[in-house]
Amino acid sequence: MAFIVQKFGGTSVATIELIKKAALRVKSEIDAGHHVIAVVSAMAGTTSALVSFVRDLSTTYDRAEYDAIVSSGEQITAGLLALALQNMGIPARSWLGWQIPIHTSSQYAEAHIEHIETKALQAALNKGHVAVVTGFQGLSPEGRVTTLGRGGSDTTAVALAAALKAERCDIFTDVEGIYTADPRYVSTADKLDHIAYQEMLELAAQGARVLQKESVEYAMKHRVRLRVLSSLSDTPGTLITHEREAKIRPSLIRGIAHSFNEEHFTLVTLPQNPSLIDKIRAFLKENHILIDMVQQNLSLCGRTLNFSFTLQETEADRAFDLLQQSKNILGFNDLLRESRVAKISIIGTGLLNQHAASHKLFQILREEKIDVYAVASSDIKLSVLIPAQYAERAIASLHTIYKLDAEER
Amino acid sequence: MAFIVQKFGGTSVATIELIKKAALRVKSEIDAGHHVIAVVSAMAGTTSALVSFVRDLSTTYDRAEYDAIVSSGEQITAGLLALALQNMGIPARSWLGWQIPIHTSSQYAEAHIEHIETKALQAALNKGHVAVVTGFQGLSPEGRVTTLGRGGSDTTAVALAAALKAERCDIFTDVEGIYTADPRYVSTADKLDHIAYQEMLELAAQGARVLQKESVEYAMKHRVRLRVLSSLSDTPGTLITHEREAKIRPSLIRGIAHSFNEEHFTLVTLPQNPSLIDKIRAFLKENHILIDMVQQNLSLCGRTLNFSFTLQETEADRAFDLLQQSKNILGFNDLLRESRVAKISIIGTGLLNQHAASHKLFQILREEKIDVYAVASSDIKLSVLIPAQYAERAIASLHTIYKLDAEER
Repeated sequence: MAFIVQKFGGTSVATIELIKKAALRVKSEIDAGHHVIAVVSAMAGTTSALVSFVRDLSTTYDRAEYDAIVSSGEQITAGLLALALQNMGIPARSWLGWQIPIHTSSQYAEAHIEHIETKALQAALNKGHVAVVTGFQGLSPEGRVTTLGRGGSDTTAVALAAALKAERCDIFTDVEGIYTADPRYVSTADKLDHIAYQEMLELAAQGARVLQKESVEYAMKHRVRLRVLSSLSDTPGTLITHEREAKIRPSLIRGIAHSFNEEHFTLVTLPQNPSLIDKIRAFLKENHILIDMVQQNLSLCGRTLNFSFTLQETEADRAFDLLQQSKNILGFNDLLRESRVAKISIIGTGLLNQHAASHKLFQILREEKIDVYAVASSDIKLSVLIPAQYAERAIASLHTIYKLDAEER
Repeated sequence: MAFIVQKFGGTSVATIELIKKAALRVKSEIDAGHHVIAVVSAMAGTTSALVSFVRDLSTTYDRAEYDAIVSSGEQITAGLLALALQNMGIPARSWLGWQIPIHTSSQYAEAHIEHIETKALQAALNKGHVAVVTGFQGLSPEGRVTTLGRGGSDTTAVALAAALKAERCDIFTDVEGIYTADPRYVSTADKLDHIAYQEMLELAAQGARVLQKESVEYAMKHRVRLRVLSSLSDTPGTLITHEREAKIRPSLIRGIAHSFNEEHFTLVTLPQNPSLIDKIRAFLKENHILIDMVQQNLSLCGRTLNFSFTLQETEADRAFDLLQQSKNILGFNDLLRESRVAKISIIGTGLLNQHAASHKLFQILREEKIDVYAVASSDIKLSVLIPAQYAERAIASLHTIYKLDAEER
């Protein structure tokens, strides 16, 4: 008998009625002859309320206590779903992270799953009992409760699927699946039936909203077949799997991703001082500031060397202050900051060899008279940084040009 | 350095502001050079909300899941109090029942504490860390979370005080201490400074509101000095201790207790059939119906034998139906039921030898023309069952007669 992991997000277990509906979804897999592991998030709103309690006390806090507090949300949902299943005559019990145990690192509030002991869980499953597991949490080497960071329930589900060699890991959420572009911005965005792990990772802005990035990476590493689907409808959702299984034609652009939450920094220095860039990179790394879309170039007049990069806007103030304070030590002349930028990316496996695809991108931007601040590319993604005010127009145009609009695919 | 256990009830940790106040109370014991174990209940209202979730799902439920759900409330408070202490510069950490562990029986929802492993806790305390412990919960032999039943946080506090040989166990609540009578009914009720365990147990109606009965029994058995005091004021509260330490003069009436939640049943049978009473007692026991104030007597005209007793009004309907259904088998003639009754008791150590005290009781009832349905006495308590409409008047009169009024003591 196959193992199926079903993960129910906060909006899918937000009320007692929804918990009963989740129980029906478990039942349909049981009726199909499967063993089911149900992973649950906290009821929507619960975790935020608990986080507010902590923040009301203090802005800085012991993360181990934060975890003890915040992890209580999933504990409630797990018990309630187990009871809902029992009411339907299905044997079920809740498993808290420490009871399995799901061993994690001791980085409280952002722990990583290190090892899952499956013996007790497997014994219960083999008896035909549904295991309802608290997502998002585990046990530290010190014997305390850890959490995996927000959205970590996805990772719990994938890790359990990997440990139990589950046939599939279904992520129930409040969207229908993964789209060719963010449906909030592109009305013609179309749902994808299949997508490769890598492509999913690159559809970053959507991905973050639907699935925690770490969970996709974990699934890719352990070849867990992931499915994202709505708990509110009966559509099949999107299967995220290895590219061969996803039956994806190379050369095809699969979707358009965007990020509106970045800023663009440019450090201006003298061209005689190229080693400065290494110093700056080391300085940023030391201060845990992640940068992307890194470029360096001589300015047109040939008298300065520009080093530019993007970073998350949540980090921008801190990074700006740190760099300004170290201006003399690092030895640059000027620091420019542009916050009204948007990163637009086209996603598709084997893109690096598809000159036609990238040609189209730059052609459309030229036609629309949109400046490009920076470009970055990989085998799967081609990103351009453009002024924020043109972002929606660019996404819509690209979506049409690459024939992604719903009626065309 | 002495160990002090401080227990904060739900109303004492109902908000972040109150949690900060509780932290200040911990701090004052730390400043006095003590090791502190703080035991917390769930924030007022939390447990009821969780119980409602369970009841919304089903009227019957797996108690192990109930425990997993309901125990989350204390987990939150423990983490928050630990954070509040850390904010004051006091090293502290939360301890969940299973982390200590507090081993209990596996009677979920009404488990009993069997053994507390103090090693890890003691090591943390010896380092000067405050241990903030979740009340009300423990670990079953099966490795799952148990709860001790409502109010069980008191028992957790007392059991920890016993296990750690604490100097004192302070129960912070929303009343000032134990009174000579229930202050809701007797405006002149006075707070007692000292009271013996036994007397506390007999002040039943108040006791249930302030302290779980089991916790007082546990304290008596292990000689834990208990103190009940208000978290909202700085009055010293009531010390509950062994009678010698309580320095109680025998002969003194310590307080008036009452219960309005009982009914009085009278079974009428033929005098030729006295063995019937044994059968009825066995029948009631079999059906888990606890009875009190048992009396049997020949009726005045000598033709019937009456067997009467009191029982909790919550049990009365069930008991009445069961008895009626078995009328023929048990062989009694009639069953009378009186629900408008009140049990009034005078409490004082060594009461059995104090004829003057009991004489006064019956004298006042006679003077007030109050009928007495039944009488029961022990070394520490003399109870009378009277019509409910006279209850408040009787309590007030007795309170005055025994010189318990606030201005007189």
